[in-house]
Amino acid sequence: MTQRELEVGQVAEFTKTVTEADVVMFAGITGDLNPAHVDQVWAEASRFGGRIAHGMLSASFISTVLAMKLPGPGTIYLSQSLRFTGPVKIGDTVTARVEVAEVMPKRRVRLTTTVRTHDGTQVIEGEAVVLAP
Amino acid sequence: MTQRELEVGQVAEFTKTVTEADVVMFAGITGDLNPAHVDQVWAEASRFGGRIAHGMLSASFISTVLAMKLPGPGTIYLSQSLRFTGPVKIGDTVTARVEVAEVMPKRRVRLTTTVRTHDGTQVIEGEAVVLAP
Amino acid sequence: MTQRELEVGQVAEFTKTVTEADVVMFAGITGDLNPAHVDQVWAEASRFGGRIAHGMLSASFISTVLAMKLPGPGTIYLSQSLRFTGPVKIGDTVTARVEVAEVMPKRRVRLTTTVRTHDGTQVIEGEAVVLAP
Amino acid sequence: MTQRELEVGQVAEFTKTVTEADVVMFAGITGDLNPAHVDQVWAEASRFGGRIAHGMLSASFISTVLAMKLPGPGTIYLSQSLRFTGPVKIGDTVTARVEVAEVMPKRRVRLTTTVRTHDGTQVIEGEAVVLAP
Repeated sequence: MTQRELEVGQVAEFTKTVTEADVVMFAGITGDLNPAHVDQVWAEASRFGGRIAHGMLSASFISTVLAMKLPGPGTIYLSQSLRFTGPVKIGDTVTARVEVAEVMPKRRVRLTTTVRTHDGTQVIEGEAVVLAP
Repeated sequence: MTQRELEVGQVAEFTKTVTEADVVMFAGITGDLNPAHVDQVWAEASRFGGRIAHGMLSASFISTVLAMKLPGPGTIYLSQSLRFTGPVKIGDTVTARVEVAEVMPKRRVRLTTTVRTHDGTQVIEGEAVVLAP
Repeated sequence: MTQRELEVGQVAEFTKTVTEADVVMFAGITGDLNPAHVDQVWAEASRFGGRIAHGMLSASFISTVLAMKLPGPGTIYLSQSLRFTGPVKIGDTVTARVEVAEVMPKRRVRLTTTVRTHDGTQVIEGEAVVLAP
Repeated sequence: MTQRELEVGQVAEFTKTVTEADVVMFAGITGDLNPAHVDQVWAEASRFGGRIAHGMLSASFISTVLAMKLPGPGTIYLSQSLRFTGPVKIGDTVTARVEVAEVMPKRRVRLTTTVRTHDGTQVIEGEAVVLAP
């Protein structure tokens, strides 16, 4: 969507099940082999009771919604704030949701961004600013 | 490092070349197939002159330093702010750097976080708050 | 799109650069390690002068357009015919295109399907029948 | 096999368990993130009762048999028809089978092609025409 078509309150989402394969490949790409993500024995003894996904993996689904849906292809990412409020376990299905909060001058758009697990628990909250296509 | 060992000014880094394979796999994991990342013809005609890496891929290297080095394994991510100040092209070598800015009560640590390309250009700046192991 | 919204002549596309990483991973998933795809020395001496992508990899982009765009999420694939009319080399940017050819009873839709490289050369032509969402 | 060695009735097969990792990577390579493949919650509520593999992933195993076994390395794919007659769930073990149906002039060979799950259910049927090595 071009800035002209953007209005406060518009919403878009992307949902994906976070699989073991996703976490393994994300660990490989980023080099983040924190035992919480790749060591099942360590993770079972931790406060989370099992391996969890990287926070930045779940956060990346926000970028997916921005780039693919709202505003969509051609969007340029300017900033993102992230507060991690809960873990995503391997096998959880998560939904990233963005909502237009402000249409600013010079093609800038501010959006509230959240990621929730399928039971409704919020795991990330924050805000993005992008340059609309 | 446990909180006791942490001091303002401590620094750690992680450096990686962002390859085409990284970008292809990151697109697959996240579902972000923005043409800027996966369509070379489109990308060549864009302001960047070629395919660029996902901003969140470069940002993830910050998480890598936090989890692997400073404070290190067992760290829990509480928040991250990101300002994207430049593109990372496929083939660029980037360095994520974190520096302890404040050791807070209750095991909390605030760190300044940057990502630079090998020529020194800053592509991400921001701040993280984590729970030390 | 539900069947009600579908009309003859509607068109959708998906474009992606076919990278070496794509071909390597596709070979691994499918077990098709034909030297044309994985043996650069063999491939250079072949009629194609270098490694080419699997025909079914390029064909899969047709499925991507059907599932993601037209008719879109929820579509069920009933049949596909494929005629491979040219090679896709590693590094080629290809566009899969589908066009509604007939809206049939019982939610069935017939679409013409093509894949072309960025210079306009047709590499696949065929026809799909799907069940609209 | 060269055309001289090919005879009507010759058969070859390839069997593989379709894992979650295969489906995750296939979605990434192709960009087909249909919820039927990547969203477990959506898929459980669908007619299939869980995530299923991409039809084109199962179809690709036909290409594997043609390229690796019959006629084997050097084979060039000319055409393939596919009728999708049932779903492949994550975890299913499938067998692609090709049988020489006609040895034609100019090195052309026509083969019947099927894919079945381990309980014998046919999930794909169709026909291939290839250029023998």
